[in-house]
Amino acid sequence: MSCITLTTDFGLIDPFVGIMKGVLLDRAPEATVVDVTHSIPPQDVMAGALALLQAAPYFPAGTVHVAVIDPGVGGERLPIAIETDRAVFVGPDNGVLSLAAPAGVIRRVVALTESRFHLPVRSATFHGRDVFAPVAAALASGIALDSLGAAQAQIVRLTIPEPTTVPGGLCGEVIHVDRFGNLATNVSAERLRPLASEAVVHIGGQTARLVPSYDAIDRGGLGALINSWAMLEIAARERSAADMLSATRGTPVRISRRHD
Amino acid sequence: MSCITLTTDFGLIDPFVGIMKGVLLDRAPEATVVDVTHSIPPQDVMAGALALLQAAPYFPAGTVHVAVIDPGVGGERLPIAIETDRAVFVGPDNGVLSLAAPAGVIRRVVALTESRFHLPVRSATFHGRDVFAPVAAALASGIALDSLGAAQAQIVRLTIPEPTTVPGGLCGEVIHVDRFGNLATNVSAERLRPLASEAVVHIGGQTARLVPSYDAIDRGGLGALINSWAMLEIAARERSAADMLSATRGTPVRISRRHD
Amino acid sequence: MSCITLTTDFGLIDPFVGIMKGVLLDRAPEATVVDVTHSIPPQDVMAGALALLQAAPYFPAGTVHVAVIDPGVGGERLPIAIETDRAVFVGPDNGVLSLAAPAGVIRRVVALTESRFHLPVRSATFHGRDVFAPVAAALASGIALDSLGAAQAQIVRLTIPEPTTVPGGLCGEVIHVDRFGNLATNVSAERLRPLASEAVVHIGGQTARLVPSYDAIDRGGLGALINSWAMLEIAARERSAADMLSATRGTPVRISRRHD
Repeated sequence: MSCITLTTDFGLIDPFVGIMKGVLLDRAPEATVVDVTHSIPPQDVMAGALALLQAAPYFPAGTVHVAVIDPGVGGERLPIAIETDRAVFVGPDNGVLSLAAPAGVIRRVVALTESRFHLPVRSATFHGRDVFAPVAAALASGIALDSLGAAQAQIVRLTIPEPTTVPGGLCGEVIHVDRFGNLATNVSAERLRPLASEAVVHIGGQTARLVPSYDAIDRGGLGALINSWAMLEIAARERSAADMLSATRGTPVRISRRHD
Repeated sequence: MSCITLTTDFGLIDPFVGIMKGVLLDRAPEATVVDVTHSIPPQDVMAGALALLQAAPYFPAGTVHVAVIDPGVGGERLPIAIETDRAVFVGPDNGVLSLAAPAGVIRRVVALTESRFHLPVRSATFHGRDVFAPVAAALASGIALDSLGAAQAQIVRLTIPEPTTVPGGLCGEVIHVDRFGNLATNVSAERLRPLASEAVVHIGGQTARLVPSYDAIDRGGLGALINSWAMLEIAARERSAADMLSATRGTPVRISRRHD
Repeated sequence: MSCITLTTDFGLIDPFVGIMKGVLLDRAPEATVVDVTHSIPPQDVMAGALALLQAAPYFPAGTVHVAVIDPGVGGERLPIAIETDRAVFVGPDNGVLSLAAPAGVIRRVVALTESRFHLPVRSATFHGRDVFAPVAAALASGIALDSLGAAQAQIVRLTIPEPTTVPGGLCGEVIHVDRFGNLATNVSAERLRPLASEAVVHIGGQTARLVPSYDAIDRGGLGALINSWAMLEIAARERSAADMLSATRGTPVRISRRHD
């Protein structure tokens, strides 16, 4: 059994995702295809890179992860495949693969120049169907990475902004708002550790104390906790913190000690 | 082949569902995973319980049904698994499993206390990934229910409100509004039978007669029919009855005889 | 391995699609079930027919395609199955299958009159569950088409409007707006060829020149290109052309030569 995941901004209204799965099944009938998400905001390469970063570690070793958030489709950006110590990543070389495949674990990168592994006719607008799905099917069927094209030395990289240390605390920002309106920040559990349980989070003119779980937040109030991704997150009890605070990606967050 | 279903309020924007599937595939590679729905309104335990009640009977015997609508994640509510005469249900003990697993068919209930069947690190916010997915994978791989934790005597139960008998008819309410704006009520076909085809449905100041199918409703008008779930449903012809009537869950419905 | 696809207007909020998959898995446990889309606008038979037309060619030979956009469910329209030279199509006889199964490739059509292949109890509202899913499972399990019911000579057909030739060009219209706001028209690459690169597209009081890819459109501007479906499409650079032009299905498009 081989596993292929899909992360795109195609949405679920048009048949794009179904078409990619048709190509995958036609060429790799034994593969199991899993959706990570298809609701990345259109052309939001960073959001796609974060979703893949969160999801990839939970899939079986050898999984082929395909990410198609590709505003430059048909232009000069190259389609690539990256082999790491654990998985293979396929997509455009625009950074979307770069958070899940950090430099330290990369074994090889190839540009997908061998068109014999693509669909016979390549459109200018849908490389998910014409290039990325057939290449993923080839990889899942055991084709060697090196056959797919020429080796490539560098990839385009995105970076998650690092929080900065300020007197008495840290300054960070919201990097993701989830469906529940919970606000994930760029402050890792590790960065937070020196402040420990004394930390108070300031955001949008309000403050939130650290709690062990959503359940421990007062009704109508805010709390801060370490989320499933080991990052500081601001949440409200059974409602949306994003709505309460009018917060969005980029909203600044400050962490101080309680006696401030 | 074993089958695992997923019912959550995680939505399809974030990668939560994909991550659960990664855990399932990693630990039960032969299982077939099916989405019931991931669009339960956030924290709406009753809506999740109703979806599972409708869906579970159509899956193969032995299916493992996972439901994660879990506002109390990380708090005191216990994660449980319930074995019935036909299937196994896995989720939080907050009632979400209780409509699909009524008392009469339950064989055993266990609290999921054996952490060796969970992911090695358990977050405070994502038991779908850390507890429920690995436990479902264990069950689908043949691990005995009893291994998963201590037996538990009771579960938290939800109840669908019963319609009341009034002179000349019945009073009920809308319990679900579907995508088409059709209004499912708590009046079963069985409760309606004494009134038979003489029934007239009163809702939102309007009336609807019983029709055999959507097709028999006049354009621009309302009709009432027995839905696929053997419950009375109010529908409009090729438009939304919910919009027409400003009706929602809880909207009262009265059924009288036609000569009223 | 056999493959079954699903195209519906059921949405992903209610458990309808999950229930159909339960029936499919119960009766054809070895089949791979793939979603084309479940977000066809309610009762929009033409939109469903177009999605299936786009998707079906990419699936393996022998795939069973199920389409349920069925405003007449429970009424007089017949459920049918169509065998073509490449696949089998199952759904209501209201035109939804007719674009993907054009007359030239049809081998046989049957009305699904043999109720022994349906669920034992048939509701008036959910033939996706009660008729189409069990019939698709039967076909995927090797049951012969002829067993499913009586041969039928004709099917209800939809047609995509043809563009008209006018002095110096063509008049067409928008037939689909995708998630990105790209506007697919009824003008095929073939019809456009005589105008070649001299073509200028007029829509909503604006003009767009032909470009090879999205990447070649100026920021803030419009472009026209041949899409993945070999049709003329109007797009904006990293934003929605539909929003820019207030365009929707049916919006007229005129193509002239550049020197006009």
